[in-house]
Amino acid sequence: MSLIVQKFGGTSVGTIERIEQVADKVARFRGDGHSVVVVVSAMSGETNRLIALAHEIQDRPVPRELDVLVSTGEQVTTALLSMALNKRGVKAKSYNGSQVRILTDDAHTKARIRDIDDERLHADLDEGYVVVVAGFQGVDEQGNITTLGRGGSDTTAVALAAALKADECQIYTDVDGVYTTDPRVVDGARRLDRITFEEMLEMASMGSKVLQIRAVEFAGKYNVPLRVLHSFKEGPGTLIALEDSSQMETPTIAGIAFNRDEAKLTVVGVPDMPGIAHRILGPIGDANIEVDVIVQNVADDKTTDFTFTVARGDLNRAQDVLKQVAEDINARDVRSDSKIAKVSVVGVGMRSHAGVASQAFAALAEVGINIQMITTSEIKISVIIEEKFLELAVRALHSSFGLDKEPQDETPA
Amino acid sequence: MSLIVQKFGGTSVGTIERIEQVADKVARFRGDGHSVVVVVSAMSGETNRLIALAHEIQDRPVPRELDVLVSTGEQVTTALLSMALNKRGVKAKSYNGSQVRILTDDAHTKARIRDIDDERLHADLDEGYVVVVAGFQGVDEQGNITTLGRGGSDTTAVALAAALKADECQIYTDVDGVYTTDPRVVDGARRLDRITFEEMLEMASMGSKVLQIRAVEFAGKYNVPLRVLHSFKEGPGTLIALEDSSQMETPTIAGIAFNRDEAKLTVVGVPDMPGIAHRILGPIGDANIEVDVIVQNVADDKTTDFTFTVARGDLNRAQDVLKQVAEDINARDVRSDSKIAKVSVVGVGMRSHAGVASQAFAALAEVGINIQMITTSEIKISVIIEEKFLELAVRALHSSFGLDKEPQDETPA
Repeated sequence: MSLIVQKFGGTSVGTIERIEQVADKVARFRGDGHSVVVVVSAMSGETNRLIALAHEIQDRPVPRELDVLVSTGEQVTTALLSMALNKRGVKAKSYNGSQVRILTDDAHTKARIRDIDDERLHADLDEGYVVVVAGFQGVDEQGNITTLGRGGSDTTAVALAAALKADECQIYTDVDGVYTTDPRVVDGARRLDRITFEEMLEMASMGSKVLQIRAVEFAGKYNVPLRVLHSFKEGPGTLIALEDSSQMETPTIAGIAFNRDEAKLTVVGVPDMPGIAHRILGPIGDANIEVDVIVQNVADDKTTDFTFTVARGDLNRAQDVLKQVAEDINARDVRSDSKIAKVSVVGVGMRSHAGVASQAFAALAEVGINIQMITTSEIKISVIIEEKFLELAVRALHSSFGLDKEPQDETPA
Repeated sequence: MSLIVQKFGGTSVGTIERIEQVADKVARFRGDGHSVVVVVSAMSGETNRLIALAHEIQDRPVPRELDVLVSTGEQVTTALLSMALNKRGVKAKSYNGSQVRILTDDAHTKARIRDIDDERLHADLDEGYVVVVAGFQGVDEQGNITTLGRGGSDTTAVALAAALKADECQIYTDVDGVYTTDPRVVDGARRLDRITFEEMLEMASMGSKVLQIRAVEFAGKYNVPLRVLHSFKEGPGTLIALEDSSQMETPTIAGIAFNRDEAKLTVVGVPDMPGIAHRILGPIGDANIEVDVIVQNVADDKTTDFTFTVARGDLNRAQDVLKQVAEDINARDVRSDSKIAKVSVVGVGMRSHAGVASQAFAALAEVGINIQMITTSEIKISVIIEEKFLELAVRALHSSFGLDKEPQDETPA
């Protein structure tokens, strides 16, 4: 029998009725003989209610006290779920972050996990208890309560799975798995049985909101098999794990990711000399604006054009910064365009398969889409295109790489 | 400068506005140079809200998890009050029971305090922090969260004051002090400047709801000066402490207490033989019925009458038990009367003053009240009378012992 860590988010435990449903599910796994650790978030709305109380007092409450305040939300859920399990004849025990103990640094409201003491949990698991742990929180070396920041419950679950050497970490959500692309854009999008950590990271960073990036990184680092499942529907979900060594050949492409939230800035007529990229992007970084794609072509005469993308909400601020920069470096002009989007083809298989890039460009060309910028990584090719072509591009690529087809063997986990 | 522990109950911290008012008060004490530890309850209504959630799941939730659940209520208040203090430029830090650490036994929902670690609190106080502690809760030796049961926040405050060797423990309430008797019964009732622990215990057990009996016992045991004050009105309150040795003579009588919640049971024609009291009261105790006053007169012939009082709500059950007992011991009859009340004259001074009893009986005789039962302790004389004479009796005694008069010197603390 295996040791499973299961994480349920705020919506999944948002009412007593849903907590009872979660208890049913956990009891079933326990009944099958598995050892189970459950990580829970605060009931949906509770964290916001607590923060609103704090904001009645202060706009910027002391982070230490904010952590003391909001950490009660998960603690409430752990107690209620333990009761619901006990009611079902399943021995259960709640733990808050400090009781486990989940040791973090002292960066209140955005702490990072340093260590987890697995001794007490293992003792309880050995005695047949289901252990219910408050997500999102820990304790620093001085015994102060810390929180990992919003969404941190995924990270708690993965960290616990790593510390306890669990066989699987199951993240229950409101979707039944990870898809080849957004089903709202492509009808033929299908749930993936399996995806690698790296692919998931690329998909996640492109706006796929299924999992916290931080949790995926953590899982990859400690090789914790992650499974994304629907809280209230049955199904195998999607396993996020290392490449499947039992398969002779990995599928070339896992999926098509995209992001509408991009805006493009071009500094035109930049003198072609060393250090110019830093003189442009330094002030942007100083203004706390994150840059995504960067492209600089070789200069044709003595000047070049320097283009990069930022989140759309940062465009105005970035423009203001760049105007000053352009003057300083004697550039000709600053142009911007917020009507762009990024589309990416993601898959570890492309490492060993030549021609993925040219196949992608061909597919886009076939439907008449002009590519404005291109960047590539080992497992991803991204293009920036006009926003109005986004859906068309995603569908063309999804179909070109054979993702529409039903998979050969859909084996439930 | 002194070290003060201040306790604010659920009503005093029931809204953000009231928490701000409490912060004003605490800040004032801190501004005067005192070291301050604040003990808070959950915001009024919060504990009930949490218990209602639990009861949606189970009528009798596991006590361990109930403690995990309700202990969040006080934790929320500690964070909010700390924020409100920080906002006023007063350095403040919250602590829950486990952080302090308030070590208790493992009797969940009614735990008893065993030990308090004062090291961290002293360190914070030395650094000028106001320390805000969650009342009502602690932690057992295994690190499980425990609660002291309802009203336990008073006990937390007194226990902290004892552990920290505080100069005074201030309990803020919705009354401005302890009165010579209930002002709703006697217009001339007046606030006492000072009362002894023993007197307070006798007054409290008679239905004066100002303080938890347990907290007064605790304070007496460790000689912690307690002060009862109004949360939102200024005033010196009432100091509960050892007898004032600076006074040449202690006032004879502190106050008149009374209790309507009494019912009387008489077993008539009880054979006068050893062990009979136990054969009557044993089954009553087994039925978890608490007995208050007990009177057995010397037997006139071969039988005697055995009378005792119970809480009115227990009368029916007590009658059922007694009917069987009367048969077993061959008694003649069981009679009961729920229309009785108990009135007590309380005061440590009566130890050294003869004639208090006769003065009390004379005062009652003067207004034509018949005394049904009498019991006495070193510092209390109680009589059982017909309920309809209660107010009359209290007024007569209050006036007879000179309690109506304005006190000679009302020195603010």
